[in-house]
Amino acid sequence: MTRTDTADLTGRRIRVGLDVGGTKIDAVGVGPSGDILGRIRRSTGWGDDAVVESIVMAVTSLADEAGFPVSEIGSVGIGIPGLVDVEEGRVEHAVNLGVESLDLAARAERMLGIPFRVENDVKAAALGAAVLSGVAGSMAYLNLGTGVAAGIVVGGRIWRGSRGTAGEVGHLSVDPHGRLCGCGQLGCIETFCGGGALARAWGRPGALPIRDIFDAADAGDPDALVLRGDLFHGAAAAVRVLVLSADVETVVIGGGLTALGARLEEGIRTALRAEAETSPFMRSLHLDERIELLPAGSPAAAFGAALVGASVPEKSVPEKEIVPHG
Amino acid sequence: MTRTDTADLTGRRIRVGLDVGGTKIDAVGVGPSGDILGRIRRSTGWGDDAVVESIVMAVTSLADEAGFPVSEIGSVGIGIPGLVDVEEGRVEHAVNLGVESLDLAARAERMLGIPFRVENDVKAAALGAAVLSGVAGSMAYLNLGTGVAAGIVVGGRIWRGSRGTAGEVGHLSVDPHGRLCGCGQLGCIETFCGGGALARAWGRPGALPIRDIFDAADAGDPDALVLRGDLFHGAAAAVRVLVLSADVETVVIGGGLTALGARLEEGIRTALRAEAETSPFMRSLHLDERIELLPAGSPAAAFGAALVGASVPEKSVPEKEIVPHG
Repeated sequence: MTRTDTADLTGRRIRVGLDVGGTKIDAVGVGPSGDILGRIRRSTGWGDDAVVESIVMAVTSLADEAGFPVSEIGSVGIGIPGLVDVEEGRVEHAVNLGVESLDLAARAERMLGIPFRVENDVKAAALGAAVLSGVAGSMAYLNLGTGVAAGIVVGGRIWRGSRGTAGEVGHLSVDPHGRLCGCGQLGCIETFCGGGALARAWGRPGALPIRDIFDAADAGDPDALVLRGDLFHGAAAAVRVLVLSADVETVVIGGGLTALGARLEEGIRTALRAEAETSPFMRSLHLDERIELLPAGSPAAAFGAALVGASVPEKSVPEKEIVPHG
Repeated sequence: MTRTDTADLTGRRIRVGLDVGGTKIDAVGVGPSGDILGRIRRSTGWGDDAVVESIVMAVTSLADEAGFPVSEIGSVGIGIPGLVDVEEGRVEHAVNLGVESLDLAARAERMLGIPFRVENDVKAAALGAAVLSGVAGSMAYLNLGTGVAAGIVVGGRIWRGSRGTAGEVGHLSVDPHGRLCGCGQLGCIETFCGGGALARAWGRPGALPIRDIFDAADAGDPDALVLRGDLFHGAAAAVRVLVLSADVETVVIGGGLTALGARLEEGIRTALRAEAETSPFMRSLHLDERIELLPAGSPAAAFGAALVGASVPEKSVPEKEIVPHG
């Protein structure tokens, strides 16, 4: 690193975090004391080049709209679906982005001259949710979106496990006679509570199929009642797996389905209570009291990505870590 | 602590570990370099007083048979079923021992004047199995006995979780239409691969019902074929839960059912392979290569208890920790 580089970084006090989804990027700028200085949404490109460009554009647009120069950004953290090599900043098999293998951090760094750090989107969101929810001790973040996966945070750090499958509870089968999962197994938790699987099982047109299912269930539609019950049951099963294996204290639920708000939260809570009814052991765990929903529109995922970015090695970014609230 | 006490402890270089089961106690003495100096088995008493007495007798008999005086014992670690308060050395709800609530460490210490430390039996066995198997990194120990539970060891330490339910995978349901579990739920993993549940489902007389099931299955008995298949399927499900939640690198299988040896190991391996066949994701995890069976008669549980005992606070036991092999 040259003296010029070091001098450059001295004034860079803002951490940017990007949650890169299949359709849009949620970007936040985080100040030295953990305050969110600005937030924008941009659409995501498709394929290697477009993904890198849309990420770089999101960073510069955020800086522009929030009123800080790119030169003040100390790091960019990216939460992105797929298999992420955190050390190398590389993404593999991000099928919803048209990415097979992308040297993301290096390419983005070359374009902006800022250190980038890449993390799996659910793991980054877990870290952000842990901090924003003020959860002390161990927690899992259960993401109910098109697919289902969880991230585990213990003592303020992402639980990484041995091969990157920590929290992949979506592909545990809980019914040998259940629906066929996209992964090839039958009755995976994701076939019960994944937005994609539920929309396919519902099979009727509509832009918001899960909301349609809930509305139709309220109106007494028998198919919708079954699918809504499946959703609550699958999410409850995921909560049980997380508590009876890793023994997290709290499960924070996030992801696209949380747009359903209290209708979702109360349904999962009721399922946890009802399904524990026959078992003194399960009742003693009080699982229904150990879940919480992220507020709709929570910046947890992008905020968590900013925290990931803030952990880039000191040689690149000499400032202190940001102090998150909560 | 008086000066006499301190002087007393100086020569105490042997760590004793006890695995207390429903019918017998397995006791080992471990030397300063982790070598097993002696091992005995004694029957377990029933009820508070008899449990304490049988534990004290196991310690003194071990010392006698292995040829070291009780005064050389620096600590006794106890692995015992039930809910264990590690800090207080207290055991609750050890139903197979007739114990509702027992101040075990304090009572045993009063009788022998040696520091005692108490741990849940599966967690202690997990620690012993991790060391004896030479597993580096994260591992789970899956105990297939009358019941089914797992302990998780990460970086050489027992993973404790928030409320003591880490590794309690036996009571996760994997089939909503499955057999009724003793816990009150349907289709728990334990109903598939717990020795107690399988013996009940088999319902024929015999001292070794699981071995009988295997022999009858080999002879083509249709009931036995189903139950043997259930056992392999349930154990495979437990392995999947442990890898897809905590992401342990290796699952070491122990407990009474391991007396079946290769017949058990190959069956679980084949189930893991067969059940992954439809799923590229599951195949990519190579779970069949990530299990191993403890050798029949392995002292892992008692050895792990000795390691637990060796971690008593330094104020009680001023020697260095023993250096385990592997």
